[in-house]
Amino acid sequence: MTAASDNLTLRLLREVLSCPSVTPEDKGCQNLISGFLIDAGFESETICRGKTDNLYCWYGSAGPLFLFAGHTDVVPPGCGWNTDPFAPTEVDGNLVARGAQDMKTSDVCFAAAAKQFVKNFPNFKGRIALLLTSDEEGDGKDGTAFAIEELKKKGIQPDFCIVGEPTCSKELGDTIKNGRRGSCNCRVTIYGEQGHVAYPLKVENPIHTASKIISKLAQTQWDQGCEGFPSTSFQVSNITAGTGAVNIVPGSCSFVFNLRYNPATSGQEIENKANGIIKEFAENSDISWEHSAFPFKTEGKELTGCLEKAISKVQDIKPALSTTGGTSDARFISRWCSEVVEFGPVNNLIHKANESIPLKDIPKLTEIYYQTLVNLFSVSSK
Amino acid sequence: MTAASDNLTLRLLREVLSCPSVTPEDKGCQNLISGFLIDAGFESETICRGKTDNLYCWYGSAGPLFLFAGHTDVVPPGCGWNTDPFAPTEVDGNLVARGAQDMKTSDVCFAAAAKQFVKNFPNFKGRIALLLTSDEEGDGKDGTAFAIEELKKKGIQPDFCIVGEPTCSKELGDTIKNGRRGSCNCRVTIYGEQGHVAYPLKVENPIHTASKIISKLAQTQWDQGCEGFPSTSFQVSNITAGTGAVNIVPGSCSFVFNLRYNPATSGQEIENKANGIIKEFAENSDISWEHSAFPFKTEGKELTGCLEKAISKVQDIKPALSTTGGTSDARFISRWCSEVVEFGPVNNLIHKANESIPLKDIPKLTEIYYQTLVNLFSVSSK
Repeated sequence: MTAASDNLTLRLLREVLSCPSVTPEDKGCQNLISGFLIDAGFESETICRGKTDNLYCWYGSAGPLFLFAGHTDVVPPGCGWNTDPFAPTEVDGNLVARGAQDMKTSDVCFAAAAKQFVKNFPNFKGRIALLLTSDEEGDGKDGTAFAIEELKKKGIQPDFCIVGEPTCSKELGDTIKNGRRGSCNCRVTIYGEQGHVAYPLKVENPIHTASKIISKLAQTQWDQGCEGFPSTSFQVSNITAGTGAVNIVPGSCSFVFNLRYNPATSGQEIENKANGIIKEFAENSDISWEHSAFPFKTEGKELTGCLEKAISKVQDIKPALSTTGGTSDARFISRWCSEVVEFGPVNNLIHKANESIPLKDIPKLTEIYYQTLVNLFSVSSK
Repeated sequence: MTAASDNLTLRLLREVLSCPSVTPEDKGCQNLISGFLIDAGFESETICRGKTDNLYCWYGSAGPLFLFAGHTDVVPPGCGWNTDPFAPTEVDGNLVARGAQDMKTSDVCFAAAAKQFVKNFPNFKGRIALLLTSDEEGDGKDGTAFAIEELKKKGIQPDFCIVGEPTCSKELGDTIKNGRRGSCNCRVTIYGEQGHVAYPLKVENPIHTASKIISKLAQTQWDQGCEGFPSTSFQVSNITAGTGAVNIVPGSCSFVFNLRYNPATSGQEIENKANGIIKEFAENSDISWEHSAFPFKTEGKELTGCLEKAISKVQDIKPALSTTGGTSDARFISRWCSEVVEFGPVNNLIHKANESIPLKDIPKLTEIYYQTLVNLFSVSSK
């Protein structure tokens, strides 16, 4: 990279951060990036549905396909900002704007790295593509998952993928995510027998039954975890029963719980075990499951090795491999591409007021992505 | 009693049932009764507060004081009536109207019995009084409890009391209530540590804590019951936690529970034991108690014996003594008068649509009250 290209990257990032792309609206971010890549020979296609824009932008026609996946949408700014969240501002060596960490900087840094790479190695043996969505922070139905289905119809399937989510905890380069837990929610309604609290023999209290079920589910050891993953965790997020009247035992009690599970357990096993516990205590219940993410673990080591090597070169640290945290679009991509990892900037300010990125990390992240491509496509570094 | 007096009782009852005295409004019921008693030498005083009317009506100036306690207010009719709930209608031998069982019939039957009694025994050794309120079905704050305080200031204290609540289950005379359980409600908020469901180590789920507490409270044997009383019962009436979002562990969980307890246990013991269980599981909680009724058991046997004898004479059955069911104004009177029992008509239709009283029970209930006075004041029956 050169000082001139670093300056260009920063100018592009400022433009992208200035777009008020609150999910699921892109507000022009994707066009800035595809416009930036066009003179390097990238082609692009938009895949839109509803309010969501998806951009697929590619270079090369044969050989292994490397995909960078990102999103251009951001969560709403909220309050507490000292500057306009969509007017990127330099403060104490940081660039402050909504999306600075999550994840417009990754999008732009990768675009800059890819442009530089194809300029330096126009005849490398492979293909490079970007898939950007504006529906990652929302419900995700019209975003990456939908775009993948469209790309599959055209026979496109990546061999390697980096999702540019902010993965680092303290310092750029300290963490790569090489898997994610699965996530499912279960909504339960326990039916009892309503009645007056004064006649305990005539009622069957569904709150008492729900409490027994929750206590047992919370004590259950679902599994022992597996390599790189903690054991499955259980949390009730909501519970409600009663009319407000203090002399009535209600007829039903409803609650919702979430399980985060690892690849050693299947969603179906989780479901069967939980259903068994619910039915052990409740004769009459409604149970409904929603699987929002299946777990994945990157088994391939090729991309991970190239990324680790690039990080070591730029930052002189060995990144940790982690599978913690919430879900990302990697949950969809992992079912399409065999080696998916997530790597991006530090995530300490995501979704918060005054989100920012250290200015010094922008060329470094660009360089890490660039060196990863160099390693992956086995070309000599320039 | 005579056919003429029975006819008069029915006419008065029809008038009283025609008053739309939805709690806490009396709508003229009490004046009908005091007007009916005035020519028999009863004096009366009204003790009003807010929308509530209380009537204290008495005869005699010396000797043991017998009190009849009742209420003239009724619960709202609700829907499903075949006739106007405030236009008493004879249907198949029953008089249909809101308040027919709970408890205008008792009020009128006792007034008729008392009038007849003082007419037949003008020089009996004792005093007879009625205390009627229009705030028994509501919150009760301006009703019997308030009236008692006013009467105490005048040095009035009854020796015997019948509360005319409908106590019988299948047949007039089958049940006398000689005590009631205590009742208290406890509102609890458990505080945990809010956070994202994906980071189980960073949260402390208050719903899980509440479930453990409820399970333990529901399994607790509070006592073994005592003569005439079942063991203490525990019921949760309401529980709520969560924002609706399925990925957030909420910061708090609130629930309300009720305990119905017997005189072998004190409200303070219940409170201490429950607080101990809550604090065993929750480090941080708010707990607030409300004692709506203290338990009582009628220890004296004099009035009970007179009432049992009267029932046997009129109905030829031996009544059961019971302490089950909800609370009544006897909870207040028991702290003022040493021998309190409850006795009135069958209660199978209370608070329901098409509430009614068998016409044949009206003179019988009057006669039972009359014979009780005869027995209590040891006069020869006429």
